[in-house]
Amino acid sequence: MKRLALAAAALATLVMALPAHAQFQKPEDAVKYRKGAYTVMASHFGRIGAMAQGRVPFDAAAAQANAEVVATLSRLPGAAFIEGSGAGDTRAKPEVWSEADKFKAANAKMVEAVGKLSAAAKTGNLDQIKATFGEAAKTCKACHDHFRKD
Amino acid sequence: MKRLALAAAALATLVMALPAHAQFQKPEDAVKYRKGAYTVMASHFGRIGAMAQGRVPFDAAAAQANAEVVATLSRLPGAAFIEGSGAGDTRAKPEVWSEADKFKAANAKMVEAVGKLSAAAKTGNLDQIKATFGEAAKTCKACHDHFRKD
Repeated sequence: MKRLALAAAALATLVMALPAHAQFQKPEDAVKYRKGAYTVMASHFGRIGAMAQGRVPFDAAAAQANAEVVATLSRLPGAAFIEGSGAGDTRAKPEVWSEADKFKAANAKMVEAVGKLSAAAKTGNLDQIKATFGEAAKTCKACHDHFRKD
Repeated sequence: MKRLALAAAALATLVMALPAHAQFQKPEDAVKYRKGAYTVMASHFGRIGAMAQGRVPFDAAAAQANAEVVATLSRLPGAAFIEGSGAGDTRAKPEVWSEADKFKAANAKMVEAVGKLSAAAKTGNLDQIKATFGEAAKTCKACHDHFRKD
Protein backbone atom coordinates (compact mmCIF):
# COMPACT_ATOMS: atom_id res chain seq x y z
CA MET A 1 0.00 0.00 0.00
CA LYS A 2 2.76 2.39 0.93
CA ARG A 3 4.63 1.63 -2.27
CA LEU A 4 1.44 2.21 -4.22
CA ALA A 5 0.87 5.52 -2.47
CA LEU A 6 4.42 6.58 -3.25
CA ALA A 7 4.01 5.59 -6.89
CA ALA A 8 0.76 7.53 -7.04
CA ALA A 9 2.42 10.54 -5.47
CA ALA A 10 5.29 10.34 -7.94
CA LEU A 11 2.83 10.11 -10.81
CA ALA A 12 0.87 13.08 -9.49
CA THR A 13 4.10 15.06 -9.33
CA LEU A 14 4.85 14.21 -12.94
CA VAL A 15 1.35 15.00 -14.11
CA MET A 16 1.38 18.31 -12.27
CA ALA A 17 4.75 19.10 -13.79
CA LEU A 18 3.69 18.37 -17.35
CA PRO A 19 2.08 21.63 -18.41
CA ALA A 20 4.42 23.71 -16.32
CA HIS A 21 6.66 24.91 -19.12
CA ALA A 22 3.63 26.71 -20.53
CA GLN A 23 3.27 28.63 -17.26
CA PHE A 24 6.52 30.53 -17.66
CA GLN A 25 7.09 32.81 -20.61
CA LYS A 26 10.85 32.93 -20.08
CA PRO A 27 13.31 30.69 -18.21
CA GLU A 28 14.09 33.65 -15.91
CA ASP A 29 10.45 33.68 -14.84
CA ALA A 30 10.72 30.04 -13.78
CA VAL A 31 13.92 30.77 -11.84
CA LYS A 32 12.35 33.74 -10.06
CA TYR A 33 9.24 31.71 -9.27
CA ARG A 34 11.02 28.71 -7.79
CA LYS A 35 13.40 30.89 -5.78
CA GLY A 36 10.42 32.78 -4.42
CA ALA A 37 8.70 29.55 -3.44
CA TYR A 38 11.81 28.21 -1.71
CA THR A 39 12.38 31.52 0.11
CA VAL A 40 8.88 31.56 1.57
CA MET A 41 8.98 27.84 2.32
CA ALA A 42 12.33 28.14 4.11
CA SER A 43 11.06 31.02 6.22
CA HIS A 44 8.06 29.09 7.51
CA PHE A 45 10.05 25.88 7.85
CA GLY A 46 12.54 27.83 9.95
CA ARG A 47 9.76 29.08 12.23
CA ILE A 48 8.82 25.47 12.98
CA GLY A 49 12.50 24.67 13.48
CA ALA A 50 12.81 27.43 16.07
CA MET A 51 10.05 25.73 18.06
CA ALA A 52 11.35 22.22 17.47
CA GLN A 53 14.76 23.30 18.72
CA GLY A 54 13.36 25.21 21.71
CA ARG A 55 14.61 28.61 20.55
CA VAL A 56 11.08 30.02 20.76
CA PRO A 57 8.17 28.78 22.90
CA PHE A 58 6.06 26.07 21.30
CA ASP A 59 2.81 27.41 19.85
CA ALA A 60 0.74 24.56 18.43
CA ALA A 61 -1.50 26.79 16.31
CA ALA A 62 1.46 28.63 14.83
CA ALA A 63 3.27 25.35 14.13
CA GLN A 64 0.22 24.02 12.31
CA ALA A 65 -0.26 27.20 10.27
CA ASN A 66 3.41 27.29 9.33
CA ALA A 67 3.44 23.61 8.39
CA GLU A 68 0.41 24.10 6.15
CA VAL A 69 2.16 26.94 4.34
CA VAL A 70 5.27 24.77 3.95
CA ALA A 71 3.20 21.86 2.61
CA THR A 72 1.41 24.06 0.07
CA LEU A 73 4.66 25.60 -1.11
CA SER A 74 6.56 22.31 -1.24
CA ARG A 75 4.44 21.19 -4.18
CA LEU A 76 5.26 24.20 -6.35
CA PRO A 77 8.93 24.65 -7.27
CA GLY A 78 9.49 21.15 -8.69
CA ALA A 79 7.52 22.10 -11.80
CA ALA A 80 9.63 25.20 -12.39
CA PHE A 81 12.89 23.44 -13.27
CA ILE A 82 11.98 23.71 -16.93
CA GLU A 83 14.41 23.07 -19.75
CA GLY A 84 16.73 26.02 -20.28
CA SER A 85 16.34 27.40 -16.77
CA GLY A 86 19.74 26.21 -15.53
CA ALA A 87 21.53 29.44 -16.43
CA GLY A 88 21.43 32.93 -14.98
CA ASP A 89 20.58 33.82 -11.40
CA THR A 90 20.26 30.26 -10.13
CA ARG A 91 22.27 27.87 -7.98
CA ALA A 92 20.72 24.83 -9.63
CA LYS A 93 23.42 22.43 -10.83
CA PRO A 94 23.30 20.84 -14.30
CA GLU A 95 22.56 17.56 -12.50
CA VAL A 96 18.96 18.76 -11.99
CA TRP A 97 18.49 18.05 -15.69
CA SER A 98 21.17 15.45 -16.41
CA GLU A 99 19.91 13.32 -13.50
CA ALA A 100 16.29 14.34 -13.83
CA ASP A 101 14.82 11.12 -12.43
CA LYS A 102 17.00 11.36 -9.34
CA PHE A 103 16.08 15.01 -8.89
CA LYS A 104 12.38 14.28 -9.22
CA ALA A 105 12.68 11.49 -6.67
CA ALA A 106 14.53 13.79 -4.25
CA ASN A 107 11.85 16.43 -4.74
CA ALA A 108 9.07 13.90 -4.15
CA LYS A 109 10.80 12.78 -0.95
CA MET A 110 10.79 16.34 0.33
CA VAL A 111 7.11 16.81 -0.51
CA GLU A 112 6.29 13.57 1.28
CA ALA A 113 8.35 14.45 4.37
CA VAL A 114 6.78 17.89 4.58
CA GLY A 115 3.35 16.28 4.33
CA LYS A 116 4.23 14.17 7.36
CA LEU A 117 5.39 17.28 9.21
CA SER A 118 2.08 18.95 8.43
CA ALA A 119 0.17 15.90 9.68
CA ALA A 120 2.26 15.89 12.87
CA ALA A 121 1.65 19.61 13.39
CA LYS A 122 -2.10 18.97 13.21
CA THR A 123 -1.80 16.65 16.22
CA GLY A 124 -0.14 19.39 18.27
CA ASN A 125 2.35 16.83 19.62
CA LEU A 126 5.75 18.52 19.89
CA ASP A 127 7.71 15.25 19.89
CA GLN A 128 6.09 14.22 16.62
CA ILE A 129 6.77 17.66 15.20
CA LYS A 130 10.43 17.42 16.22
CA ALA A 131 10.82 13.99 14.61
CA THR A 132 9.11 14.86 11.33
CA PHE A 133 10.85 18.23 11.20
CA GLY A 134 14.21 16.47 11.43
CA GLU A 135 13.29 14.03 8.69
CA ALA A 136 12.07 16.83 6.44
CA ALA A 137 15.25 18.82 7.05
CA LYS A 138 17.27 15.82 5.90
CA THR A 139 15.43 15.78 2.58
CA CYS A 140 16.22 19.49 2.08
CA LYS A 141 19.90 18.90 2.80
CA ALA A 142 20.14 15.81 0.60
CA CYS A 143 18.86 17.73 -2.39
CA HIS A 144 20.98 20.83 -1.69
CA ASP A 145 24.12 18.71 -1.32
CA HIS A 146 23.69 17.09 -4.71
CA PHE A 147 21.75 19.54 -6.83
CA ARG A 148 22.60 23.04 -5.56
CA LYS A 149 25.80 25.02 -5.93
CA ASP A 150 27.38 26.30 -2.72
CA MET B 1 -22.61 41.48 10.68
CA LYS B 2 -20.52 42.22 7.65
CA ARG B 3 -18.89 45.16 9.41
CA LEU B 4 -18.18 42.94 12.40
CA ALA B 5 -16.65 40.28 10.15
CA LEU B 6 -14.47 42.88 8.48
CA ALA B 7 -13.37 44.25 11.84
CA ALA B 8 -12.57 40.73 12.99
CA ALA B 9 -10.60 40.08 9.81
CA ALA B 10 -8.69 43.32 10.30
CA LEU B 11 -7.94 42.38 13.88
CA ALA B 12 -6.78 38.91 12.82
CA THR B 13 -4.47 40.53 10.29
CA LEU B 14 -3.02 42.75 13.00
CA VAL B 15 -2.61 39.90 15.45
CA MET B 16 -0.94 37.76 12.81
CA ALA B 17 1.33 40.65 11.95
CA LEU B 18 2.39 41.34 15.52
CA PRO B 19 5.19 38.84 16.02
CA ALA B 20 6.31 39.07 12.41
CA HIS B 21 9.30 41.34 13.00
CA ALA B 22 10.80 38.53 15.05
CA GLN B 23 10.57 36.22 12.03
CA PHE B 24 13.09 38.18 9.99
CA GLN B 25 16.61 38.67 11.21
CA LYS B 26 17.31 41.51 8.79
CA PRO B 27 15.05 43.90 6.84
CA GLU B 28 16.47 42.42 3.61
CA ASP B 29 15.11 39.04 4.66
CA ALA B 30 11.63 40.52 4.96
CA VAL B 31 11.95 42.14 1.52
CA LYS B 32 13.10 38.91 -0.08
CA TYR B 33 10.31 36.98 1.62
CA ARG B 34 7.48 39.28 0.60
CA LYS B 35 8.77 39.56 -2.98
CA GLY B 36 8.94 35.78 -3.15
CA ALA B 37 5.39 35.48 -1.89
CA TYR B 38 4.09 38.05 -4.41
CA THR B 39 6.01 36.39 -7.26
CA VAL B 40 4.48 32.98 -6.60
CA MET B 41 1.04 34.47 -5.93
CA ALA B 42 1.13 36.47 -9.18
CA SER B 43 2.13 33.39 -11.16
CA HIS B 44 -0.83 31.36 -9.93
CA PHE B 45 -3.20 34.32 -10.13
CA GLY B 46 -2.12 34.75 -13.74
CA ARG B 47 -2.90 31.12 -14.50
CA ILE B 48 -6.48 31.70 -13.36
CA GLY B 49 -6.55 34.91 -15.37
CA ALA B 50 -5.53 33.03 -18.50
CA MET B 51 -8.61 30.83 -18.05
CA ALA B 52 -10.90 33.69 -17.04
CA GLN B 53 -9.88 35.57 -20.17
CA GLY B 54 -10.16 32.53 -22.45
CA ARG B 55 -6.49 32.44 -23.35
CA VAL B 56 -6.24 28.82 -22.20
CA PRO B 57 -9.04 26.24 -21.92
CA PHE B 58 -10.93 26.27 -18.63
CA ASP B 59 -9.82 23.50 -16.28
CA ALA B 60 -11.91 23.56 -13.10
CA ALA B 61 -9.48 21.45 -11.05
CA ALA B 62 -6.51 23.58 -12.07
CA ALA B 63 -8.44 26.78 -11.33
CA GLN B 64 -9.30 25.50 -7.87
CA ALA B 65 -5.73 24.39 -7.13
CA ASN B 66 -4.33 27.71 -8.32
CA ALA B 67 -6.88 29.69 -6.32
CA GLU B 68 -5.99 27.77 -3.17
CA VAL B 69 -2.31 28.57 -3.65
CA VAL B 70 -3.18 32.23 -4.20
CA ALA B 71 -5.37 32.29 -1.09
CA THR B 72 -2.64 30.72 1.06
CA LEU B 73 0.00 33.11 -0.24
CA SER B 74 -2.22 36.20 0.02
CA ARG B 75 -2.10 35.97 3.79
CA LEU B 76 1.69 36.06 4.02
CA PRO B 77 3.38 39.20 2.68
CA GLY B 78 1.37 41.73 4.72
CA ALA B 79 3.32 40.76 7.83
CA ALA B 80 6.66 41.31 6.11
CA PHE B 81 6.43 45.08 5.71
CA ILE B 82 8.33 45.50 8.94
CA GLU B 83 9.84 48.77 10.11
CA GLY B 84 13.08 49.52 8.30
CA SER B 85 12.30 47.36 5.27
CA GLY B 86 11.45 50.25 2.95
CA ALA B 87 14.98 50.60 1.61
CA GLY B 88 17.09 48.45 -0.68
CA ASP B 89 15.76 46.11 -3.34
CA THR B 90 12.09 47.00 -2.93
CA ARG B 91 9.48 48.97 -4.82
CA ALA B 92 7.46 49.64 -1.68
CA LYS B 93 6.74 53.37 -1.32
CA PRO B 94 7.21 55.19 2.02
CA GLU B 95 3.38 55.43 2.14
CA VAL B 96 3.30 51.75 3.19
CA TRP B 97 4.53 52.95 6.57
CA SER B 98 3.38 56.59 6.65
CA GLU B 99 -0.17 55.50 5.76
CA ALA B 100 0.00 52.18 7.54
CA ASP B 101 -3.72 51.92 8.33
CA LYS B 102 -4.62 52.53 4.71
CA PHE B 103 -2.05 49.98 3.56
CA LYS B 104 -3.34 47.37 6.00
CA ALA B 105 -6.89 48.00 4.83
CA ALA B 106 -5.83 47.63 1.18
CA ASN B 107 -4.02 44.42 2.03
CA ALA B 108 -7.05 43.07 3.91
CA LYS B 109 -9.25 43.88 0.90
CA MET B 110 -6.98 41.83 -1.33
CA VAL B 111 -6.99 38.88 1.08
CA GLU B 112 -10.79 39.04 1.25
CA ALA B 113 -11.19 39.26 -2.55
CA VAL B 114 -8.82 36.36 -3.09
CA GLY B 115 -10.81 34.34 -0.55
CA LYS B 116 -13.93 34.94 -2.64
CA LEU B 117 -12.07 33.87 -5.78
CA SER B 118 -11.03 30.67 -4.03
CA ALA B 119 -14.64 30.01 -2.95
CA ALA B 120 -15.82 30.63 -6.52
CA ALA B 121 -13.16 28.28 -7.90
CA LYS B 122 -14.44 25.54 -5.61
CA THR B 123 -17.86 25.77 -7.31
CA GLY B 124 -16.27 25.22 -10.72
CA ASN B 125 -18.52 27.94 -12.18
CA LEU B 126 -16.50 29.89 -14.74
CA ASP B 127 -18.74 32.96 -14.62
CA GLN B 128 -18.27 33.23 -10.85
CA ILE B 129 -14.53 32.75 -11.30
CA LYS B 130 -14.42 35.51 -13.91
CA ALA B 131 -16.34 37.92 -11.68
CA THR B 132 -14.31 37.26 -8.53
CA PHE B 133 -11.05 37.24 -10.48
CA GLY B 134 -11.86 40.70 -11.81
CA GLU B 135 -12.66 42.00 -8.34
CA ALA B 136 -9.46 40.51 -6.93
CA ALA B 137 -7.40 42.02 -9.76
CA LYS B 138 -8.81 45.44 -8.87
CA THR B 139 -7.54 45.09 -5.30
CA CYS B 140 -4.05 44.26 -6.61
CA LYS B 141 -4.07 47.29 -8.88
CA ALA B 142 -5.41 49.65 -6.22
CA CYS B 143 -2.57 48.77 -3.89
CA HIS B 144 0.10 48.89 -6.61
CA ASP B 145 -1.10 52.29 -7.80
CA HIS B 146 -0.79 53.84 -4.39
CA PHE B 147 1.90 51.88 -2.57
CA ARG B 148 4.31 50.57 -5.21
CA LYS B 149 6.88 52.43 -7.27
CA ASP B 150 6.64 52.04 -11.07
